[in-house]
Amino acid sequence: MNPDITRERENATFNVEKLTHILDGGIEKTKRRREIESLVISDPDFQSEDLNFLSRSERYDAAVKKSAQMILKLREYGISDPEEIYCYKSCVHRGRSEPLDLHLAMFLPTLLNQASPEQMETFFIPAWNLEIIGTYAQTEMGHGTHLRGLETTATYDPATQEFVLNSPTITSIKWWPGGLGKTSNHAIVLAQLHTQGKCHGLHAFIVPLRSMNTHIPLPGVVVGDIGPKFGFDEVDNGYLKLENVRIPRDHMLMKYAKVEADGTYVKPPSAKLTYGTMVFIRSMIVGEAGRALAKSCTIAIRYSSVRHQSEIRPGEPEPQIMDYQTQQYKLFPLLATAYAYKFVGQYMNQVYHRITGDISQGDFSELPELHALSAGLKAFTTWTASEGIEVCRMACGGHGYSRCSALPDIYVNFVPTCTYEGENTVMMLQTARFLIKSYRQASAGHQLSGIVSYLNESERRLQPQSVSSRPTVVNVNDLASLVEAYKLRAAKLVELAAKSIQQELQKRVSQEDAWNNSAIDLVRASDAHCHYVVVKLFAAKLGEIGDTGVHSVLSTLALLYALQGIQQHSGDFLQTGLLSVPQLSQVSQRLKELLAQLRPNAVALVDAFDYCDEMLNSVLGRYDGNVYEHMFEWARCSPLNKTEVHESYHKYLKPLQAKL
Amino acid sequence: MNPDITRERENATFNVEKLTHILDGGIEKTKRRREIESLVISDPDFQSEDLNFLSRSERYDAAVKKSAQMILKLREYGISDPEEIYCYKSCVHRGRSEPLDLHLAMFLPTLLNQASPEQMETFFIPAWNLEIIGTYAQTEMGHGTHLRGLETTATYDPATQEFVLNSPTITSIKWWPGGLGKTSNHAIVLAQLHTQGKCHGLHAFIVPLRSMNTHIPLPGVVVGDIGPKFGFDEVDNGYLKLENVRIPRDHMLMKYAKVEADGTYVKPPSAKLTYGTMVFIRSMIVGEAGRALAKSCTIAIRYSSVRHQSEIRPGEPEPQIMDYQTQQYKLFPLLATAYAYKFVGQYMNQVYHRITGDISQGDFSELPELHALSAGLKAFTTWTASEGIEVCRMACGGHGYSRCSALPDIYVNFVPTCTYEGENTVMMLQTARFLIKSYRQASAGHQLSGIVSYLNESERRLQPQSVSSRPTVVNVNDLASLVEAYKLRAAKLVELAAKSIQQELQKRVSQEDAWNNSAIDLVRASDAHCHYVVVKLFAAKLGEIGDTGVHSVLSTLALLYALQGIQQHSGDFLQTGLLSVPQLSQVSQRLKELLAQLRPNAVALVDAFDYCDEMLNSVLGRYDGNVYEHMFEWARCSPLNKTEVHESYHKYLKPLQAKL
Repeated sequence: MNPDITRERENATFNVEKLTHILDGGIEKTKRRREIESLVISDPDFQSEDLNFLSRSERYDAAVKKSAQMILKLREYGISDPEEIYCYKSCVHRGRSEPLDLHLAMFLPTLLNQASPEQMETFFIPAWNLEIIGTYAQTEMGHGTHLRGLETTATYDPATQEFVLNSPTITSIKWWPGGLGKTSNHAIVLAQLHTQGKCHGLHAFIVPLRSMNTHIPLPGVVVGDIGPKFGFDEVDNGYLKLENVRIPRDHMLMKYAKVEADGTYVKPPSAKLTYGTMVFIRSMIVGEAGRALAKSCTIAIRYSSVRHQSEIRPGEPEPQIMDYQTQQYKLFPLLATAYAYKFVGQYMNQVYHRITGDISQGDFSELPELHALSAGLKAFTTWTASEGIEVCRMACGGHGYSRCSALPDIYVNFVPTCTYEGENTVMMLQTARFLIKSYRQASAGHQLSGIVSYLNESERRLQPQSVSSRPTVVNVNDLASLVEAYKLRAAKLVELAAKSIQQELQKRVSQEDAWNNSAIDLVRASDAHCHYVVVKLFAAKLGEIGDTGVHSVLSTLALLYALQGIQQHSGDFLQTGLLSVPQLSQVSQRLKELLAQLRPNAVALVDAFDYCDEMLNSVLGRYDGNVYEHMFEWARCSPLNKTEVHESYHKYLKPLQAKL
Repeated sequence: MNPDITRERENATFNVEKLTHILDGGIEKTKRRREIESLVISDPDFQSEDLNFLSRSERYDAAVKKSAQMILKLREYGISDPEEIYCYKSCVHRGRSEPLDLHLAMFLPTLLNQASPEQMETFFIPAWNLEIIGTYAQTEMGHGTHLRGLETTATYDPATQEFVLNSPTITSIKWWPGGLGKTSNHAIVLAQLHTQGKCHGLHAFIVPLRSMNTHIPLPGVVVGDIGPKFGFDEVDNGYLKLENVRIPRDHMLMKYAKVEADGTYVKPPSAKLTYGTMVFIRSMIVGEAGRALAKSCTIAIRYSSVRHQSEIRPGEPEPQIMDYQTQQYKLFPLLATAYAYKFVGQYMNQVYHRITGDISQGDFSELPELHALSAGLKAFTTWTASEGIEVCRMACGGHGYSRCSALPDIYVNFVPTCTYEGENTVMMLQTARFLIKSYRQASAGHQLSGIVSYLNESERRLQPQSVSSRPTVVNVNDLASLVEAYKLRAAKLVELAAKSIQQELQKRVSQEDAWNNSAIDLVRASDAHCHYVVVKLFAAKLGEIGDTGVHSVLSTLALLYALQGIQQHSGDFLQTGLLSVPQLSQVSQRLKELLAQLRPNAVALVDAFDYCDEMLNSVLGRYDGNVYEHMFEWARCSPLNKTEVHESYHKYLKPLQAKL
């Protein structure tokens, strides 16, 4: 054990294990998670060469091998709870995506939600037994977030009682679905349904892609891998071009909408039924933002405690780089953010499960709010977490660029969350639409409830109008007061966005153009709304914590989170008159004090995330802090070191020397 | 040609070719650059498979092959001007780093600058003819930016007139030098010189690493590749462990410092002589920030002009995504930044060459300012450009993640500039040291000249003290007035940082601790200083431009650059009383107008960067805008598509199905 990191742990002022239980959601959950992790870690079938040393084809191969083993072992161990499956799977693939992801997370759940009882019988058990390996093919080369724009067609032919599927243009080729390229033999294809000469919009169809015997693509199916990407090397994201592919009528998912034998279309009872999955996945992503940032902070903070560099005081030994104020300022607010997002993720998960119950009872009343919240928070957390991962990586200096740090992988595997499941700017604008609608309702005298109740007229009248007209009352040392300030900032920025739209309308432009011409303000308002929600939920979480030591350190983190957000957006707080210039100086001063205050607990706070070395897979983030020996060992295994002299020397350099 | 992009070009209001000449530095330079580019592009020896489809070893192999060809052809064509060599080399390797980079950019120049005449004779011609392939080994596993911390030793043994080189610890192993792993047979090694029982600090030694005949490492030399990284796949960054390696006395570079035969050490005449190279490389990096961002903007803006998505007005066709205000707000300020950095790069290059003349005359007077400026600007531009590349990438939606967009490569190949040649935070603090020193001189009554003259007492007294005490005079429509505002902001933030140090000192902490406890403020001051310099140089450049159309569009860009910076740092401008709240609203409004104003010229402005398709190497950034066909074509060549059925199916999936 590196003595520096041992000393860090000795200096901690709280019980790490207790904080771990809070993060896991209880002592029993921690225990079970560790059991599952050790099942995988001790399993010889899941040991493999470092993926960084393999070619892409080898990486895909290794991932398929592990996934196949995984399916067998999940059955062997009887692990069937979705959260436990997720935990086992994450551990097998070390948090990476894998070829069966969409089969497990989209194909099977979509069958469960949208297949009729007869279809369940036909497809679910074969899919459960991996005879049918499926993916979910929605996105097309030319069409992403805007679903109405999708071009793939499914035209019903009553003569044969079949649907004929086509990719009529190059832009209509399905593009991106994970597992589509090489792994899946079926796909749920989203296509525009045409029957009896009319288009009825997007519907889902089960399309066989490859022979069940030979795995060779079926006639009319042009399928393959879309090529190397920024990360996701193990996944065969694929393309799919359909050329007059015929499927039987009962291959349309018919739990809700139906096409009868003669081609008569039967509408689904509610369009909102498919919202749920989207909300669930976006909520999961919020938690994932917390996890990705927690991992990155674990690596960067542990490394900062064993890395010595430069000098603060001449003549003294090089200090731990964590002693530099600039290093603390890079890492500790991100540590606070990781905690914040983990707690927000827990909250979203709870709300989702509560509301799912209501939805199954036919009560959709809370869905719009949750939908808006999950969209905005998904964007807010993934943007900041992505940037944060890179800050952590660069805080490790040169070694953060080495693949052995794991930080490049964490980044490239996480950053796509900014784009998939709803592009972030589009998500922010969806939340803004809800906020503006709520603002207008409040302006019209309706009393709002829930998270947007701060937009109610009565509250708004209490708000400051400008820097001069009202003295500020924010107490920069009091978290509740800061939550209030974030709330008022959000209210003000929603109002500003609404006024911008109003001003545009006065120029006689259309509603739609007024919206687009105010989009910058709308995104800013959504951002402020989400920021308020995160600060509020972090503060609320503190109320649940009984242990004094843990409560104390989390309170410091929450205050740091709130104050750093104010410093970063100081313009907003000054502009809206919520803070005065002298208070802003207080914020800066207090921030520096909080950094110094957190310094002795930094390593313990990342230890509490409880990532074992096998899960982190980072030489820099090792629990024992013995970084350099293991980096050297890792490098010596690099493929370029398999021979002392690389063949290129004999092929090019030696002959060149002769010519010059 | 895609009709959308054709229409964009028709709408441009200025002559693209004239702007290209300005960027290149004159019509003749454009011509010559294009000549060199077409030499490479038409050369069958430089065609190769897409590097994204190769394994790392294959990529290294392909790069060595090209570099060897390149050396031959440079001689054949008689290209010897350093700028032209750089141009040819960039074109051959499509802007990527390559295994001979350090041989050309560090090994040969270091010989030229630091070798004695006898050493030149021994080493330079063999190195010029690539018999000696060299690299520059400075960084160690445990030591980067802080040179005094390096641990490698070179101990003189007068008995044999040799130096004995050693890596005494694991942290002293040389780590990172490009070309060290497999390519080089020599290295210039930086080591602590010990002679006659005394350590004389870092000196440079030429160390043979591999046999000139067999390329096998020499006894005592443990050398290899450090393993895969975030980018730089073509480069064999290496490690080097020296175990009692003996080199003759004349292998120490002895132009300045010397060790005589009996071991007597002779000091160099000035320690500043080695500053020049560092300043030069950092200046080059500033230009590189402009180029990396220019490439990224070219790709994202062209793609945004052909990509259609969602709807602004219901019922109308999907608009070009460049019509969304949010997209414009992401990309156009970055476009302005790319122009700004290109102009700053030109300026730095000119200043460097002017000052180099002075230095060779023994006049070092301007060196401290240039050194401070190059350090800060290197950090300022590389940070913002790195973030900007990712913004461009994500502005391309899902396709920005595909390697065929080229954006992932631009990012991973550029982002290391934040860390190498001086870690950015350390660079910012170096600039801050100069600023604080200057501030103190001015406070003591000295009259400052040059870029920091704004810190003079007399000027400072004219500055506003707080939001209330003084009416603001900034005209948000006038660039000169904005330059002034940036200047005053810098002055104010330098003052705040100096006061923070003062306050710390009053708490009776040491100078060094006071510095560290104010580091956040110091970085912020440097940042404001650099931002001021960039705005100022951009404004100054406008004065050189005669053509009305070009002047007009560049003026719009400069205004956008300045106003967007104000909006992003609105807290600073409000806090220092330079802007009022109503003016900030004006800034927001004006920004939106400028986005709309730039919209018709966006494609023409990236065309003016004049990256041919072969150099961009991006399907999304194609000049003709025909994105989708070529993306499909590219994907079909992906290695995973070499067979219809991947072997993993037969190895794992088929057997699994039998077991379930």
